[in-house]
Amino acid sequence: MSGPRAASGPAATITTADALHRFARDVFVRVGMSAEHATTVADALVWANLRGIDSHGVTRIPRYVELIERGDVNPTPALTARVETAAIILIEADRAPGPFAMPPAMAAAVRKARDVGVGVALVRATTHTGAIGYYTRQGARDGMAALAVSASTPFMAYHGARAASVSTNPLSIAIPRGEGEPLLLDMATSVVAMGRLLQAKRAGQPIPAGWALDRHGTPTTDPRTAEIPLPLGGPKGAGLSLMIECLTSLVVGNPVIAEALEDTAAGRQHRQNALTLAIDVARFGDPAAFHREVRRLVTVLKAQPRDPDVAEILMPGERGARTAERRRRDGIPIARAVHDELRALASRLGVAMFPTS
Amino acid sequence: MSGPRAASGPAATITTADALHRFARDVFVRVGMSAEHATTVADALVWANLRGIDSHGVTRIPRYVELIERGDVNPTPALTARVETAAIILIEADRAPGPFAMPPAMAAAVRKARDVGVGVALVRATTHTGAIGYYTRQGARDGMAALAVSASTPFMAYHGARAASVSTNPLSIAIPRGEGEPLLLDMATSVVAMGRLLQAKRAGQPIPAGWALDRHGTPTTDPRTAEIPLPLGGPKGAGLSLMIECLTSLVVGNPVIAEALEDTAAGRQHRQNALTLAIDVARFGDPAAFHREVRRLVTVLKAQPRDPDVAEILMPGERGARTAERRRRDGIPIARAVHDELRALASRLGVAMFPTS
Repeated sequence: MSGPRAASGPAATITTADALHRFARDVFVRVGMSAEHATTVADALVWANLRGIDSHGVTRIPRYVELIERGDVNPTPALTARVETAAIILIEADRAPGPFAMPPAMAAAVRKARDVGVGVALVRATTHTGAIGYYTRQGARDGMAALAVSASTPFMAYHGARAASVSTNPLSIAIPRGEGEPLLLDMATSVVAMGRLLQAKRAGQPIPAGWALDRHGTPTTDPRTAEIPLPLGGPKGAGLSLMIECLTSLVVGNPVIAEALEDTAAGRQHRQNALTLAIDVARFGDPAAFHREVRRLVTVLKAQPRDPDVAEILMPGERGARTAERRRRDGIPIARAVHDELRALASRLGVAMFPTS
Repeated sequence: MSGPRAASGPAATITTADALHRFARDVFVRVGMSAEHATTVADALVWANLRGIDSHGVTRIPRYVELIERGDVNPTPALTARVETAAIILIEADRAPGPFAMPPAMAAAVRKARDVGVGVALVRATTHTGAIGYYTRQGARDGMAALAVSASTPFMAYHGARAASVSTNPLSIAIPRGEGEPLLLDMATSVVAMGRLLQAKRAGQPIPAGWALDRHGTPTTDPRTAEIPLPLGGPKGAGLSLMIECLTSLVVGNPVIAEALEDTAAGRQHRQNALTLAIDVARFGDPAAFHREVRRLVTVLKAQPRDPDVAEILMPGERGARTAERRRRDGIPIARAVHDELRALASRLGVAMFPTS
């Protein structure tokens, strides 16, 4: 699902993961993060670029800086446990950047899963989550079946509504298979991601009916006016979004959707909440046998009769893993517009711009 | 989402929930279940009919009987705990009917969630799960945010495949709101449920492109040949199905998809696996405050600007709850073909047929 989010094309310049990482870290240190926090956030953003999820990569840096400068994101947060049992933890994230709050949450879920088979970490008052697959992959690399969901502000239409009323709440599940990259599903609850709508706008390509509404809530196929994505499968995607808001924001007592739709002071602030879950497959049997069965399932599915229009039957995360391999070798394309925006930011902050070729 | 699965129409006869329940119980006792087990299974089937999920109601009885008679379903199962911690349990279901194995699994998840905040019950080697919302509703009525998924045999195409290769794995989430019915999402991972394809076939209505393949794996809009549903959102629905097979069947060591696609002896037997999860919202704050926030969210969403083609913005489970209210009052329509099949079964087993009006 990462394909449509890719930024490559003739108008892109090329850089390396190391250069991007150094740049991101320098920017975040300049706006007040510790070197350690800045490194953690840079790790997650550059991972997204490597995987081809460019919409969640360094293109977000100017927005992160803006959110820090206006006080919505806290560059020096203190994470604290508010509720804790053998199996669950509620982490108050103190408006931390998502890529800073989420890895310790998944790590806590993993520790609890090792102890009692399952662990759940709820994250209260984080900010932009970033590419959510980064955190489930972390859980899977620790041997867990891992799940994560996050809640954010309304920008997708609920089924039957003609206005931005729920989030496209990302949902990710990762499954370890013993060798190589885990199976890694990372999906939104909309028909297509916001980034895909922006891509169509840039390319001037009409979009299919059923993808989006314009700002007035009218269905449109015009990429210039498409603004509000529609939910995947109507009541299914919309229902999933509503449930994820309940399972995260309402359980932790930090409602996002209702506050935003009622336009309260809290609702105008950028806030997110999240849930991570880990199940220790080793608790139920030999993990090597589990990994063998995952690989067997992949093998049998990939050998199914194929749609002649597809070159290969792909597993969740497979395209992203291949993109990462290629981009580590050949470099990461950065769209010209993103490059120019980052250069302006670098200049304003007095940070060295990353080199390109 | 229950609308398309409804069996009403001019060719239907009317009966009552009580009459259907008595009939179902009598049939199951006749084929070897205890009165208690038979009552439990009848409860779940009639609930599905009340909610309008007729595809998972008494229409399933002949198939349940067939599965019992050929030994795939065990009418006298003994459920045993194979792995247990403070937070998880793995229940060996001994080929029990799903509606018999699932309620104790959700009850166990609820008990553990009361103890440590979250509870997970995995169910190994159950059989046809039935309407999965029945079990999450049970968890929500016990005050929990509840989730359930189940795994079954391949009959949906994996994305890019031209053959039945994964299940349409139902996924349900229920959220309590203190008063009235919980929010209740119950969805398949296919574009449309199998029952909707059968309905189009009966009505002779062409189906939209993108819904289904024929038995040879060719895309079709002909309802007479549509047999293999396609996944919701391509890689999203297919990926969810694959992940649910991993989270259930592979974690409990009872693979369904690979065995079926490899056509092994085990793969030819009807088997399912499931996972139920409960999160105790009371562990994180005042449950009354949580319920108020759920009701607030519902109120604000229902007040959004509306698509002129819909009469009302509906919440997950709302249509089903209204159908149940109406059917309790006015009776349950049973399609003529289903009625005739059940009458033939009643006659063969020497059980009294339910009365109709």
